[in-house]
Amino acid sequence: MQLSASEIAQLLNGSVEGDPQVKVNRPSKIEEGGIGTITFLANSKYEEFAYTTTASVLLVSRGFVPKQQISATLIRVDDVYNSISFLLEKFGNQVVINTGISSQAFIHPTAKLGQDVSVEMFSVIEEGVIVGDGSRIASQVYIGRNVELGKNVILYPGVKIMQDCKIGDNCIIHPNVVIGGDGFGFAPQANGSYKKVPQTGNVVIESDVEIGAGTTIDRATMGSTIIRSGVKLDNLIQIAHNVEIGENTVIAAQAGIAGSTKIGKNCRIGGQVGFAGHIIIADGTQIQAQSGIASSIEEPNTALFGSPAIGYKDYIRSYAVFKKLPELYRLLAELEKQVKMNGSPPE
Amino acid sequence: MQLSASEIAQLLNGSVEGDPQVKVNRPSKIEEGGIGTITFLANSKYEEFAYTTTASVLLVSRGFVPKQQISATLIRVDDVYNSISFLLEKFGNQVVINTGISSQAFIHPTAKLGQDVSVEMFSVIEEGVIVGDGSRIASQVYIGRNVELGKNVILYPGVKIMQDCKIGDNCIIHPNVVIGGDGFGFAPQANGSYKKVPQTGNVVIESDVEIGAGTTIDRATMGSTIIRSGVKLDNLIQIAHNVEIGENTVIAAQAGIAGSTKIGKNCRIGGQVGFAGHIIIADGTQIQAQSGIASSIEEPNTALFGSPAIGYKDYIRSYAVFKKLPELYRLLAELEKQVKMNGSPPE
Amino acid sequence: MQLSASEIAQLLNGSVEGDPQVKVNRPSKIEEGGIGTITFLANSKYEEFAYTTTASVLLVSRGFVPKQQISATLIRVDDVYNSISFLLEKFGNQVVINTGISSQAFIHPTAKLGQDVSVEMFSVIEEGVIVGDGSRIASQVYIGRNVELGKNVILYPGVKIMQDCKIGDNCIIHPNVVIGGDGFGFAPQANGSYKKVPQTGNVVIESDVEIGAGTTIDRATMGSTIIRSGVKLDNLIQIAHNVEIGENTVIAAQAGIAGSTKIGKNCRIGGQVGFAGHIIIADGTQIQAQSGIASSIEEPNTALFGSPAIGYKDYIRSYAVFKKLPELYRLLAELEKQVKMNGSPPE
Repeated sequence: MQLSASEIAQLLNGSVEGDPQVKVNRPSKIEEGGIGTITFLANSKYEEFAYTTTASVLLVSRGFVPKQQISATLIRVDDVYNSISFLLEKFGNQVVINTGISSQAFIHPTAKLGQDVSVEMFSVIEEGVIVGDGSRIASQVYIGRNVELGKNVILYPGVKIMQDCKIGDNCIIHPNVVIGGDGFGFAPQANGSYKKVPQTGNVVIESDVEIGAGTTIDRATMGSTIIRSGVKLDNLIQIAHNVEIGENTVIAAQAGIAGSTKIGKNCRIGGQVGFAGHIIIADGTQIQAQSGIASSIEEPNTALFGSPAIGYKDYIRSYAVFKKLPELYRLLAELEKQVKMNGSPPE
Repeated sequence: MQLSASEIAQLLNGSVEGDPQVKVNRPSKIEEGGIGTITFLANSKYEEFAYTTTASVLLVSRGFVPKQQISATLIRVDDVYNSISFLLEKFGNQVVINTGISSQAFIHPTAKLGQDVSVEMFSVIEEGVIVGDGSRIASQVYIGRNVELGKNVILYPGVKIMQDCKIGDNCIIHPNVVIGGDGFGFAPQANGSYKKVPQTGNVVIESDVEIGAGTTIDRATMGSTIIRSGVKLDNLIQIAHNVEIGENTVIAAQAGIAGSTKIGKNCRIGGQVGFAGHIIIADGTQIQAQSGIASSIEEPNTALFGSPAIGYKDYIRSYAVFKKLPELYRLLAELEKQVKMNGSPPE
Repeated sequence: MQLSASEIAQLLNGSVEGDPQVKVNRPSKIEEGGIGTITFLANSKYEEFAYTTTASVLLVSRGFVPKQQISATLIRVDDVYNSISFLLEKFGNQVVINTGISSQAFIHPTAKLGQDVSVEMFSVIEEGVIVGDGSRIASQVYIGRNVELGKNVILYPGVKIMQDCKIGDNCIIHPNVVIGGDGFGFAPQANGSYKKVPQTGNVVIESDVEIGAGTTIDRATMGSTIIRSGVKLDNLIQIAHNVEIGENTVIAAQAGIAGSTKIGKNCRIGGQVGFAGHIIIADGTQIQAQSGIASSIEEPNTALFGSPAIGYKDYIRSYAVFKKLPELYRLLAELEKQVKMNGSPPE
């Protein structure tokens, strides 16, 4: 597809500075560019490339003030990131899952598939499964007994969803995700061994949730592990049994949440963060990557850092002194000597 | 199944307080409850719910002293967690793997399958594999050449076990676990590149081991990576080549153990903990989540915290001061000024 | 295969001390040994076993000076680790993937397979895929549309490679790796929800790259996520969209790299390390396990530690004082008291 700068500006409700007739046929990264491409400047870290990019069109925010000359035609928009997202959908490739039901899939006769459901090769759909209209199931997926999938769900290759779990409308689940494996529950025995506590609950994922490759979400011991609407989970995240994650919370890769912890709405959680079990995290909490959250957070919209985590700014201030500790140590030793001298009785 | 409070008390060797005839047909979480359910109080964090739960029966410890009135019938038992585990087995659903050998599985003619073995769709059992009686192999599992599985092993969908590995009786391996991938061994070359060191050993897993979804256990360079009886591994754990983990050690999610490290028996290791390679960890070591273990631990039953880890209490005490470092820094600067004044010669 | 010490010495360009006729037929670990085995001493931590090993032949470095008597025949070589690697190839088992194309694989009619390509059971090769000569594809692998694989690539069971990705010659990809899942990109909306930013790029992996089990590498938003030649990635690593990793960089298990970060050549990165997004790491950087890299590193060959990471030695020095903080705190309080006394006006 080819569009002119003025056509794009119209789509995005933006204004053109430069040649409105210049044509583009694909998006590019600002540092790579290329004639006939459209690129964008959303993060000021990349501003230097705005002055050197060979892209034909550059999306910028309404308020952007160039410090040097820019060869690309500018389109000014209210929200650069949303605009480029809109354009990527226009130019970008679609979800690549074959339509129809493969004869090489196994579908139990009691499973109920809605309209326009796709199932690819070597996937298994077990007894009593319900799949909503328009859902697409790629190759080598496993869907256990009595699982319910909503409408327009996408399951990528290798996804495993164990029995009794529920997935809401419009969820996107990336390759090799595991939903509904047993929670990690063992009763210590007198002889030092552990006895498995049966994990009889399920996982309930509401609508518009996206889950990154390799992430694991365990079924509840009793009741449900719950992922609320709009949650976005990155790759290789661990969600333990009976956890609940509030609406529109976003969690970066390799974070881990121990059993029965409840995370509020609209939280933003960095990569490799760990949460202890049985704690409650207030809405809007923001947690820096690699932090460890050992106890409940009651105040909404708090920013945290460290392991165990404290206030973000407090951690930064303490860590600034941490770096000077050897110097402090020497200074303290000197002072001690000096004080002893000062304090010694005059001769 | 429906049981009365008195029937349950008899099963658990417990004593009833309240209506012995009240009937329950499923377990519930204490905060959810519901008429006709049995719930439990094992963690004092949840005590407040004991006074509001709508469950019909509540399991508590012998010594529990209520602070308010409780509407549920109480059953007092010696060990609440073991009792609820016992009941979950009674009420809970069973392992959901179809019996019999699927015609859509590939089973090499030289593989030897014991009595009552199940193999589901699209699984592969290679040349020379031995599977013990009663073992159940779910869909999309791969079992490489000459692997030996003991009796009553459960392999969930997507598990991959590479050639020559051995798995003992009663092991439970959750979806998408990888056992016997190559260890990470490379010999540095003069030109800066690395040459692969062939990984010719295997993985040996003894009996009664449970392994969580997505965990990876690498084969030894030579000899065996060994997981001893009764070990419980949570999800997304990394076990490198030639590691050995002692009996009944429990490891939480996302921990990682570098090559050739030996961990003792009865250790309890938190989530996201990391171990350096070639170290030895004494029996009974307890490690707080996110800690980093850089050197051997010789004293058994030590509690550790930090990265690099030190004694648990030492870390807590040092971290308490860490939080006050900016204040300390100011105080030290003030003192320095004061000392200089004090020490200056009188005029 | 059986070889004498003198035959091995000739292969390795080494010199024999002891019986040149003694025969060995397999490698062993030094602490296990066994008559008829050859073992090695590459790490001085294991020197004590050199004096007790029952192996028949022991590889040591040219400069090794025994402190006690050694019963094994010694072979002295220039580089012990490369020598044992060479021998493991001689003695070791080969890659275990059946040759030929399984009739139980799905291969799209438009896919182009080179000479001597193997494809095992229940694997899927989609429309437009190109597979180079000698590549071996194990069971339950998924290769999406228009993927290109070079020559002699090995894909182990359960690997998923999504559409449009490219994998160079001689790459080895271990079980359940995911290449080309969508990057984690969402545009925040006014109502607190997030809108998916289409991920329209791909992943490009150059030649001689090895990728450990369960690792995930996301496709670029636009352009490519790039893994350069000779990179070695351990298990359960997360590589986000638009990351680039330079030649011959080695990354240990469970490390995570956030979006658009560029890592230089010849870096060595420890386990569980995390990188912020949009930063640049100089060639030859060495990062201690569990460190967090929050900003760009400009100086090549720097050693780093901590979260956020600082110079390795600086961290070690600061951490040494951190351990003494409670003592420092007491000392400072005492000094303060003393200074006040000293400074009080004489009576």
